[in-house]
Amino acid sequence: MFERVPPEKYGGTERIVSYLTEELVRRGHEVTLYATEDSLTSARLIGCAPTGLRLSPVAYDHNALLMAMLERVYRESAEYDIIHYHVDFYHFPLSRRNDGRHVTTLHGRLDLPGLDVLYSEYRDIPLVSISDAQRRPMPAVNWVGTVYHGMPPDDIPFCPKGEGYLLFLSRFSPEKRAETAIEIATLSGLPLKLMGKVDAVDRPYFESAVRPLLDRPGIEFLGETDETAKLEALSRASVLLFPIEWPEPFGMVLMESMAAGTPVVGFPYGSVPEVLSDLRSGRIVSTVREAVAAVGECLALDRAEVRKVFEERFSVTRMVDDYESIYRRILGEERDLQQPVRGAPAPAASGDAPRS
Amino acid sequence: MFERVPPEKYGGTERIVSYLTEELVRRGHEVTLYATEDSLTSARLIGCAPTGLRLSPVAYDHNALLMAMLERVYRESAEYDIIHYHVDFYHFPLSRRNDGRHVTTLHGRLDLPGLDVLYSEYRDIPLVSISDAQRRPMPAVNWVGTVYHGMPPDDIPFCPKGEGYLLFLSRFSPEKRAETAIEIATLSGLPLKLMGKVDAVDRPYFESAVRPLLDRPGIEFLGETDETAKLEALSRASVLLFPIEWPEPFGMVLMESMAAGTPVVGFPYGSVPEVLSDLRSGRIVSTVREAVAAVGECLALDRAEVRKVFEERFSVTRMVDDYESIYRRILGEERDLQQPVRGAPAPAASGDAPRS
Repeated sequence: MFERVPPEKYGGTERIVSYLTEELVRRGHEVTLYATEDSLTSARLIGCAPTGLRLSPVAYDHNALLMAMLERVYRESAEYDIIHYHVDFYHFPLSRRNDGRHVTTLHGRLDLPGLDVLYSEYRDIPLVSISDAQRRPMPAVNWVGTVYHGMPPDDIPFCPKGEGYLLFLSRFSPEKRAETAIEIATLSGLPLKLMGKVDAVDRPYFESAVRPLLDRPGIEFLGETDETAKLEALSRASVLLFPIEWPEPFGMVLMESMAAGTPVVGFPYGSVPEVLSDLRSGRIVSTVREAVAAVGECLALDRAEVRKVFEERFSVTRMVDDYESIYRRILGEERDLQQPVRGAPAPAASGDAPRS
Repeated sequence: MFERVPPEKYGGTERIVSYLTEELVRRGHEVTLYATEDSLTSARLIGCAPTGLRLSPVAYDHNALLMAMLERVYRESAEYDIIHYHVDFYHFPLSRRNDGRHVTTLHGRLDLPGLDVLYSEYRDIPLVSISDAQRRPMPAVNWVGTVYHGMPPDDIPFCPKGEGYLLFLSRFSPEKRAETAIEIATLSGLPLKLMGKVDAVDRPYFESAVRPLLDRPGIEFLGETDETAKLEALSRASVLLFPIEWPEPFGMVLMESMAAGTPVVGFPYGSVPEVLSDLRSGRIVSTVREAVAAVGECLALDRAEVRKVFEERFSVTRMVDDYESIYRRILGEERDLQQPVRGAPAPAASGDAPRS
């Protein structure tokens, strides 16, 4: 509820909820979406806040509206075969008392102190991770699968040829390491575009660690741009640099980059080793030196192959296949699990299928 | 859980919880306190977070620890006759399902958008307000009383004579109106001490609205001080200025000031008209001009009378009498309500007794 579904700007969770909802409706499911009143969906919409709360000029008490929504969902839960939650843990007290016909996708990082205490308490709640790495800091809980995100193939058009520049596309915060991207570009001798938002809290870091490097030759700082400019920069880039230093739970931009055909050089934190496991779509590196070599290798990759990796592993179709399979498992329709679902690869043969 | 009970520094809710707990134990009740592990109490303590979360160097997920605590309270609820919550609304999903043997004191302001939606949903939960004014923005809910805060009489010693200065004692934030206090002091021709914290978020306000006035004659800015310096300044002040412009739910400093014998000149927002309703302890004013006149009247008040108002209306004894009466009512022991409790004035005859 912090953003409209789909979000007007930033909002990874709301984007995925929108993709999932629309594809489920397309497949003939009856879907009800509890979200902000201004959400755009072909499902039945139940509005639980006037607008996205993050961008609202009114200082709503977020958690109050969230908890009122969850009580309503609980009250109306008999209407649904299954309830899919995307609101962290706030529904646990009620969903524990709801016959187990629910599943929760955790969208955030799970390494903050205190979360272990909560999740130990609620170890019966069925949970989905968005990467295997996301589970690492967690106590023993009831994981029912990992489902990588997926997106509609036409949201980002394939671009057959890069224009010879590197791209850093991310918020400018210390764990995203824009300064490492600049080092890699300088040593590669290739131009670098830097694109993204500087939040107020990250301003001191940006001014001290990033700003002084921006006048190097070939470094172009573009700041926050609109969606069109972002997609264009992503499509035309030759390589996306992802030199993070934090446990990224998934990394939407990796999937977006592959959709455009742009290979990725990423550092081995969080989900990166899983998302880039296929050497057809990029390289996983640990140092700036390795990254420079990897940029060279990536320039030689076939962009059509990169796009193919996206289509196989990060399409909305694959994501919704995975979720349908989990819904069936939770509802006890085990017979459907014995065979591949709607043309998806059989779970045993595929690295993308949900793991339990 | 944001602070230890009692708090090391700022933390009004935790102070009141501590006063209430200790007095209930003193009266022979068996009390269990769910709070941080480093809390200091004569009750049985169940630690639910290592230390106060606000001052902790570790970035705990507050709400995760809070929700884990609430699930534990629910699980253990059969052990208790009644559960008294001080955690806003986070326990509502569980306490609604807990046989009604619970009561919740709301400590914060209730006028934020979104709260009305939540409280409409949970209109069955028994609630206590800390002033009648606090209820104003709320929809129809299950109020079981107003209980003004109270404190132990010896926490702040009575000071028989003021030293001729005015005092502003508060965070420096726009709704506390330090600049109004300075105007009042200037026009009164009396010295003013200003004491309190400037939060980072309030720094721009402070620099533009308050700082330029600090070099006026007689204006002394002391900033954030320790508890001893604060109590001394409060005791020796001749008048406390409370020129707020927001719906203050209670205003702990009003009670503290009266305990010291220091009369208060307050603006008529939130709880102020109720807390200062007794003209023996201060004046309620609407303009700077009225405030200047009121300062003169307050200088003539008998400080022993001000202390007496504190003892009658804001002692911990009176507060705990009120809460015991509410506990009995909720537990259905109506016979105890027919007569005054432990020497407190009968509810019908007192402005301080809980209203339903």
